[in-house]
Parts: sequence; structure tokens; C-alpha cells
Amino acid sequence: MALDTENQFPRVVAFAGGVGGAKVAHGLAQILPPDHLTVIVNVGDDFVHHGLRISPDLDTVMYTLGGIANPQTGWGIQGDTLQNFEMLERYGVAPWFRLGDRDLATHLIRTQVLASGQTLTEATQKLSSGLGIQHTILPATDDPFTTIINTKEHGTLDFQEYFVKFRWQPTVVGISYKGEGEARATESALTAIAAADLLVICPSNPLLSVEPILRLGGMREAIQKCNVPCIAISPLIAGQAVKGPAAKLFAELNLDASVVGIARYYDELIDGLVMDIADQNAVAELRNVAPALSLYVTQTLMETIEDRARLAGEILRWQMEGISL
Amino acid sequence: MALDTENQFPRVVAFAGGVGGAKVAHGLAQILPPDHLTVIVNVGDDFVHHGLRISPDLDTVMYTLGGIANPQTGWGIQGDTLQNFEMLERYGVAPWFRLGDRDLATHLIRTQVLASGQTLTEATQKLSSGLGIQHTILPATDDPFTTIINTKEHGTLDFQEYFVKFRWQPTVVGISYKGEGEARATESALTAIAAADLLVICPSNPLLSVEPILRLGGMREAIQKCNVPCIAISPLIAGQAVKGPAAKLFAELNLDASVVGIARYYDELIDGLVMDIADQNAVAELRNVAPALSLYVTQTLMETIEDRARLAGEILRWQMEGISL
Repeated sequence: MALDTENQFPRVVAFAGGVGGAKVAHGLAQILPPDHLTVIVNVGDDFVHHGLRISPDLDTVMYTLGGIANPQTGWGIQGDTLQNFEMLERYGVAPWFRLGDRDLATHLIRTQVLASGQTLTEATQKLSSGLGIQHTILPATDDPFTTIINTKEHGTLDFQEYFVKFRWQPTVVGISYKGEGEARATESALTAIAAADLLVICPSNPLLSVEPILRLGGMREAIQKCNVPCIAISPLIAGQAVKGPAAKLFAELNLDASVVGIARYYDELIDGLVMDIADQNAVAELRNVAPALSLYVTQTLMETIEDRARLAGEILRWQMEGISL
Repeated sequence: MALDTENQFPRVVAFAGGVGGAKVAHGLAQILPPDHLTVIVNVGDDFVHHGLRISPDLDTVMYTLGGIANPQTGWGIQGDTLQNFEMLERYGVAPWFRLGDRDLATHLIRTQVLASGQTLTEATQKLSSGLGIQHTILPATDDPFTTIINTKEHGTLDFQEYFVKFRWQPTVVGISYKGEGEARATESALTAIAAADLLVICPSNPLLSVEPILRLGGMREAIQKCNVPCIAISPLIAGQAVKGPAAKLFAELNLDASVVGIARYYDELIDGLVMDIADQNAVAELRNVAPALSLYVTQTLMETIEDRARLAGEILRWQMEGISL
């Protein structure tokens, strides 16, 4: 693998959704110099609420890299309050989506930057630098692109309805992407991929967080063309998601809710797979299913901030020193 | 004076700006049945901040009538917090105007209602009823109309710049109204005036709060046409404003900063003037200057909520029973 010869750090592009992706991005950010990490973030969950543009995954990645994420939930801002939400309730207009008072500042600024004609990329840059983040966080696209969930019980739902209002309990019969075919990956994202030494697909939901990135015009081609290792970290541990509906969704869509299913899902996109020690016994099957796939087994669960750096460090060493199974 | 024959309450229309106007409106609301009081509120101070439409005087009147106004300042919401503002500061975008977390809910809703194509009147109705307010609060206009302050030191300033950023310290050389000639009083306001038994000009700043109401298309004519008593409560007590720049402005614009100056300012518009006992010795001069003006001398300073009802009650009795000086 090609390395930056001066300081021996690879230039990494990480693809991330929300909490799990943010943790790996944070681990990488603890190790890599600012100009060696670009996090490309899903915007398929973005929505407008009370007239404000909300980008849940961008916020989670920003708050995590900025060191202000709520450690209990993984999303939102630590110590945030709900004075505004309670007042909205008093006005009788508060719905199922709660925004913290501090969190609201992010949405106010983003909405205003977009209203002034600037891009989501520019808004994200402004917000990131406001939080003192030195690594690069990019929305996957500046174009309208929305994940739509088709459910058995409620028909078609906007992502946040499915995820927050119905707490991902409805049975999913299909997923589609409004804007597919028109929305393109940003030039910044494509440029970062072309310049990367290593691509990392974070342990985010493959269907809800990573797929909406891959479906953007130019994205999959850029990844396949860049001729450097692309590795994924399995979001499933012993068939279960650490958080969220990944396993449930895989089952509902007749996919194999296991690390083998993950390997199959990313198929020709990835060269390496990071899997949990709990899935050690799947190695033999993986060798069969994907003989060319390089495997790395470790503890992938990140409970502490140190866990994030430890996992990121292992992945970088594995890729830099070629130590594999 | 014509009265509602059934319950002996007059139908009152009050013209109000911010804190002083809100206090009188609250006094009237403590006495009059809901359908007997309409408060027509200045919107010349309205502005857009962080993409949100803010109507300071409407908010002050709503919060006061809704019983949630901050008793220390007279504006803003009691017990409000500044989490959002502090986060904006962290992002480096917080300016001189502070919005409380609860207060922000009002602006979010108003902005969204306006963005949906509804009027400021409709937004105000929604917000008022959310706060449980039964009396009618109306913006003076639904059209764009902005008070512009021309200052010696800083040239032309938006109202909030003059008032909040520069704390009304610059010397005012002129006041103009953007939208004058185009902006019209709302039909609701004109209808309320036509149906009123008594018009009350609250002790708000004549130049900054009342004049921007009077300048609206149709407003002055409606007041002059409706043929019921119109009385003003002097905002100046012994030549001083209770709050804000009324006296300073009068002096800067070569007007007489006294109760006599107030009587001259409202001139042919008013039939009666409520003045403070501190100005008792101006009665003789007023008799000279405005012989037709009926005068009522009382304590106009409202320090408590009871003071508001007491003053409103005195004014109503004065007008209903014809007891005058």
C-alpha cells in the first residue's frame, strides 16, 4: 500500500453514517494528521424540520470529532437541554423529533448558509471549523438525495419517520432513494477518494448509511477506479447490530444477517474485512465465500474513546504492514 | 360613549409597541372580555435573524398577555436560558442579538407559518392561542414595513442595530419607514377599529412604536373616521421615558420632551390624554395648547401587574362615566 513517505501515514477516506461510523472516524482522527483523513458522510437521512435543515449523520460525525457528542446516546450534544422543545410543546407544535437547544444552533447555521446559496459542503466546513475540527468532513453529495423506506405496516415512510417516530419497528419491504440518478457525489469527495491510500467503510448500516453514499453518481466508479485497498468493518457482531436496525433489515430483505452477509453485501467493492472475535468461527465460511478477501479479526466493539483509537490503530497497522489472517 | 349594552364593557382597540404598550394591554385584558379587546401592534422593528423572523413588539405583547414575560426586563420569557446562544457563540456566529431557547420556539413557528404562505396575522393568531391568550393580538400590517433610523454617528441603521447593538446611544437625525406608501394596515385591524367604542394609544414610544402603526395605508383615516374617543397615555413622566429613548429622541428631533409635547405630537388624533400626577403642573399649559383635549391625571407608572389593571380600570371608568378634569 502506498504511504505518505514523509510521515508514514496513509491518506484515508472513511465512509460513515451515524454513531458507529463516527466512532471509527474519531479513532482515525486520533491517529492521522488533519490532511490525512477525509470522512465522507451519508446525507440520505437529512430532512427539514421546523424549516431547519437537519443532517443527522453529519452532526453525529461533527459532534464526535469535535469532542462534544453525548456519550450516552452517541448523537446530540453532551449536556444539551430541551427548553426550546418544551416551548414548542407548549405551542402545541412539537412532534416526535426532539432538538436540543445547543443542537439547534447547528441547524440554524446550516439552514442559513444553504439559504445564502452556499453548498452543504461549505456549511459543513463552516460548522466543523467552528467546532475546532481539523480533519475534513464532507457530505457525500450537495444534491437532494433522500432515503425512502417502504414498510409493510405504514407504506412509504421518510427516513426519520421510520427511524425516530416508529423507532425502526415497521417491517421493511424495500428501500429506495429519491434523487437517485440525478444526485452526484461532490467533487471534493471524488477528489479525496482519488488521492487516498486507503478506503475504510465504517461499521455503519450498509443499507441505510453506506448504500446511500454508494448510489450517488460517480461514487462507486471512483472507489473501484482508485486502485487502493478498500476495507469494511463489519457492523454485525454475532449476527447482531451494536445499535440500530442493521440485522433486522438484513433479515427483512432476505439478506444474511451475519459477517458473511456483510462480506457478500460489499462483494467486489472491498479487499479486506475487519470482523469481531465473536465471529471467529465464520472465518472458514468466509474463506470459501470470498477467497480473495483479506480478513482481520479483533474486538470491534468500541465502548470507550480509547477503543476507537485502538481499533483504528490496528486497522492502519494491518493495512500498512500487511499483517493479515 | 357607545357601550356594549349587554355587559357594559366598551370594545377597545389598543395601539401598542413593546413593554409599556404590553403593560397597558395586559391591564385592559384583565378587565375586558376576550372579544372586547384588540391590540394592534407595531411591526416596524421586525427583522430576520439567523433566518428567523422576529417580531419584538408582538412577542412582548404576547408574552405579557400570556403571563410568561420576564418580569425583570419586560421582554423575553421568564426563566429562559441561553444554551442555543452560547452554542452559536462557539460556532463564532453569535452577534449582538441574544435569543433565549424558549423564545426561539416563537420565531421558529412564526418563520415556518410565514414560509408556508400564511400571513403574520395568522402566525400571531397561532402563537397567541398556543399561549392561551383569548384577547386578539394583531400585527398592524402583514406587509413589509421597517423603521429605519438615521443617526449622526453611524448613518442609517436598522432598528435593532440602533436599539440593541448601539443601545439607542447614537444621535438620531431622522426616522424613515421602508415600505411606507405600499404597506397597508390589515383588514382585521381596520375592522376592529371600525367596530371599536374606544381607541387607546398605549404609552409606547410615539416615534418608534406608534408612528410606524399610523403610517400604514388606511390606518390614520380609519382612526379619524371611526368617531369614537381616541385617548393616549403619555409615555413621558416629568419629561422622562419610563424605559427606552422616547425623551432622548424627542429632544434630538427638536420636539418638546414633555407631556405637552406628547399632546402636540398626537394633536388632532386624540380626544383625551392620560398623564402622570408628576406632570400635574402642565395642566394649565395643556388647557392652552389643546383646549378641546380632555385630561386625566393619575399614577401612570406600572410597577406591578395590579398597577396595570388599576390604570386600565381608571381609564375605562373615565371614558365610560365621562369623569374628566
